[in-house]
Amino acid sequence: MYVNDMPRYEILSEDAMEVLDRGWRRIVSELGIEFLLPEAVEYFRAAGQKVDGDKVFLDPEFLLEQVAKAPREFELQARNPEHSVNVGGNHMVFAPVYGPPFVREGDVRRDAKMADFENFVRLSQAFGELDSPGGTVVEPEDRPLDSRHLDMVYALQTLSDKPYMGSVISAENARDTIAMGEILFGGPEVLAASPVSISLINCNSPLRWDDRMLSAMLEYNRAGQAVVTTPFLLMGAMSPVSIPATLVQQIAEALSGIALTQLVNPGCPVVFGSFLSNTDMKSGSPSFGTPESAIGLLCTGQIARRFGLPWRSGGGLNASQTVDAQAAYESLMTMLPTFLAGANFVMHSAGWLEGGLVSCYEKFIVDIEILRELQYEFKPLEVTEESLAFDAHVEVGAGGHFLGAAHTLMNFRECFYRPLLSSTENFTRWSNNGGADATERAAGIWRETLEAYERPAIDDGVRDGLRDYVARRRIELGDEPVPTPSY
Amino acid sequence: MYVNDMPRYEILSEDAMEVLDRGWRRIVSELGIEFLLPEAVEYFRAAGQKVDGDKVFLDPEFLLEQVAKAPREFELQARNPEHSVNVGGNHMVFAPVYGPPFVREGDVRRDAKMADFENFVRLSQAFGELDSPGGTVVEPEDRPLDSRHLDMVYALQTLSDKPYMGSVISAENARDTIAMGEILFGGPEVLAASPVSISLINCNSPLRWDDRMLSAMLEYNRAGQAVVTTPFLLMGAMSPVSIPATLVQQIAEALSGIALTQLVNPGCPVVFGSFLSNTDMKSGSPSFGTPESAIGLLCTGQIARRFGLPWRSGGGLNASQTVDAQAAYESLMTMLPTFLAGANFVMHSAGWLEGGLVSCYEKFIVDIEILRELQYEFKPLEVTEESLAFDAHVEVGAGGHFLGAAHTLMNFRECFYRPLLSSTENFTRWSNNGGADATERAAGIWRETLEAYERPAIDDGVRDGLRDYVARRRIELGDEPVPTPSY
Repeated sequence: MYVNDMPRYEILSEDAMEVLDRGWRRIVSELGIEFLLPEAVEYFRAAGQKVDGDKVFLDPEFLLEQVAKAPREFELQARNPEHSVNVGGNHMVFAPVYGPPFVREGDVRRDAKMADFENFVRLSQAFGELDSPGGTVVEPEDRPLDSRHLDMVYALQTLSDKPYMGSVISAENARDTIAMGEILFGGPEVLAASPVSISLINCNSPLRWDDRMLSAMLEYNRAGQAVVTTPFLLMGAMSPVSIPATLVQQIAEALSGIALTQLVNPGCPVVFGSFLSNTDMKSGSPSFGTPESAIGLLCTGQIARRFGLPWRSGGGLNASQTVDAQAAYESLMTMLPTFLAGANFVMHSAGWLEGGLVSCYEKFIVDIEILRELQYEFKPLEVTEESLAFDAHVEVGAGGHFLGAAHTLMNFRECFYRPLLSSTENFTRWSNNGGADATERAAGIWRETLEAYERPAIDDGVRDGLRDYVARRRIELGDEPVPTPSY
Repeated sequence: MYVNDMPRYEILSEDAMEVLDRGWRRIVSELGIEFLLPEAVEYFRAAGQKVDGDKVFLDPEFLLEQVAKAPREFELQARNPEHSVNVGGNHMVFAPVYGPPFVREGDVRRDAKMADFENFVRLSQAFGELDSPGGTVVEPEDRPLDSRHLDMVYALQTLSDKPYMGSVISAENARDTIAMGEILFGGPEVLAASPVSISLINCNSPLRWDDRMLSAMLEYNRAGQAVVTTPFLLMGAMSPVSIPATLVQQIAEALSGIALTQLVNPGCPVVFGSFLSNTDMKSGSPSFGTPESAIGLLCTGQIARRFGLPWRSGGGLNASQTVDAQAAYESLMTMLPTFLAGANFVMHSAGWLEGGLVSCYEKFIVDIEILRELQYEFKPLEVTEESLAFDAHVEVGAGGHFLGAAHTLMNFRECFYRPLLSSTENFTRWSNNGGADATERAAGIWRETLEAYERPAIDDGVRDGLRDYVARRRIELGDEPVPTPSY
């Protein structure tokens, strides 16, 4: 997996950190946080926190004590041990887009289907730049809502051998995800040792956690499965139109969720989540890849490290309707700060389009190229006497050319990044070859990748166990049986 | 003008800096640098350096003594004093693309004409993100080579009131640029006080300065006009396939040029130049926006600061043939590190396409958007008690919405970056409005900007003086008279 050993780019002074520190303390203690699940409130009451209905008023020191129980770093297991990853420290885990109900394929925009879900899982498996096929890589609208999660988890587990994300719609869905993990990995004790899934728990910002997501979270906590507690902050809608105000709200919300996880199961794996951008105050729509979101990323990294927590943010976020220049610069405007800030868990790393409403095949490839470049770029430069290649200068001399130099011939294969998508063809050659722009070339790449895809091997007994579980639960949930997938 | 008060992102350790330091010292002293202008060689010989034909073997300590005479920062005067800029320190000066023989306008790619030159100067004048109309914003192929520089300098001086770049083809062209500067600014003493032009002197890398550019440089040095001494380094062609090797070559070349400027006129303004990217080892073509070029940028900034010199690099560089996703991500892959590294003089900030062969109207607008965003983003975040907007939280409460909050209503106009080009329209609205992608929208923006352009006022006598000069020199240079431009 990729490890980011480059320096972090930190922009908050010690004074600024102190102002922010006072800010979140006031929010949690004076305004309180709502937990719409009575069971969650009860955890806080039992631990001596002041409670008023759904609202919990938190002692900041108590909060910090709970947060300190969370691991600074943990292993996320893959069924192929070579694909297990660490979450925390300098490690960066990359997962694709999460959540879109729509798909874009070339010029066609349509409802997402299970076949798209499978394709995006296959693409995530195929590209080494991604560490995970993610979770809801699309919302497959052609499957019934009640049992859809079974199909999705099954596809994640069998079409990929990388760590996956679990369903968070309800406690029941979480239990299904956990049960299927136990079948895949061979029992609850494997899951208890270190998590085999990581699940996204969004805050209903501002200052409220809803009951369904919380109930799912508690299941995961108890089973020792990782969660990402994520304030969902579009400034101007879910938070004030001020970056510092939003940062303190983010701390208050994230820490309150994390504290709950540690009350449920001390030491269970949890990630400080961040999803922070802003509203376009002219259109009222969400903006992505903005200067504000970049600043938010840099600050969030610095803050999460201060609390000793792994953190999640970043990705290839953009608001563009199509895979054009805007989609590219907004995505990189998010992804480059993600590297500078050293995010540990990066969702939406590939495929995100149209503010997250669309999973796009061509955008997936553009994002893979961006990701590869940054993974290549953010590696410490080795500066040694040998790297100065003095002999090459002696050989070539003033006004000469290095293409044929011995040093070049010895190193030309490995010396530079080799693009997947970008073209350096001269104009004539490029025109003669059809004049395809990056998006058109990306279409060729994802199709070829799917054609070359090979399903990772899986034990037949384990797969049958998963299929039986899915078939049984589908009927229990009241849905019609569907043909068992061929994978 | 924009001042970058954000931290610098530096990635070279002290050990690495020492290895590089030993490297350039060996190159200048053991291999030497070629100066193909006898007058230049004579300056070094007279100062006690070892000379062998065109080759000068430089004592590193002597080199550093000369370099120390150059100003750390200087003012570059504009005819409109409000547009004068500082070069050095935290200041960043942005100029558009420089040098392309071709133009792209929508789907049409064609030879560049004087009318294009004028248009790009007008666009540079119109956008506040640019501090200069640059120099050879295109090569106008419809004007004779001998007198073309007169038309270009006249257009730069009259269609814009920002600081401009001079002609570097020959000593004679440099003298014309200086003479026209004297007419525009009112005499040589104004130019001697601080430069009114800045000119690009490229090294014929590796390790050679050619006679024509050197002879132009000497004219500028004597008149106290700024120059940018720029090693021209595509790794694999003009330098070894190693970043550290290329960095030491870059230091050796840049410092040798800078030392010459200080022998000619101690204290004259000079900029440490860098143009560093790599060859695509598969196609043999130049690549831009690569991981290697980004690392080169970060290192060059750190190195130039070590020598106490203002430095030039960066821009919206890319190898793409069209204004697509690749053009955008490669440009930002260059421009964002340019900000992180704090380049003082940034050429190619807008309009560069196809490896610098093309000045593109739509790309110009894409780049302006990128530039605006980064100028907005790279500003220190103010974190104060007031910025925490605690009252907004009190007003909105848990689960509420901030769009109507008093704090939002008070700040919504100024709180976030407002895009020039990017769209956040939802898909239906965007489709109903024609479904124009970023490049198509950019076409509308540059046309509107040209329509709204107003020529900055100029004293009639000064303008007549410039026109007379151009007309007289054109005939002296043996070219046919052409109608005087109406501006």
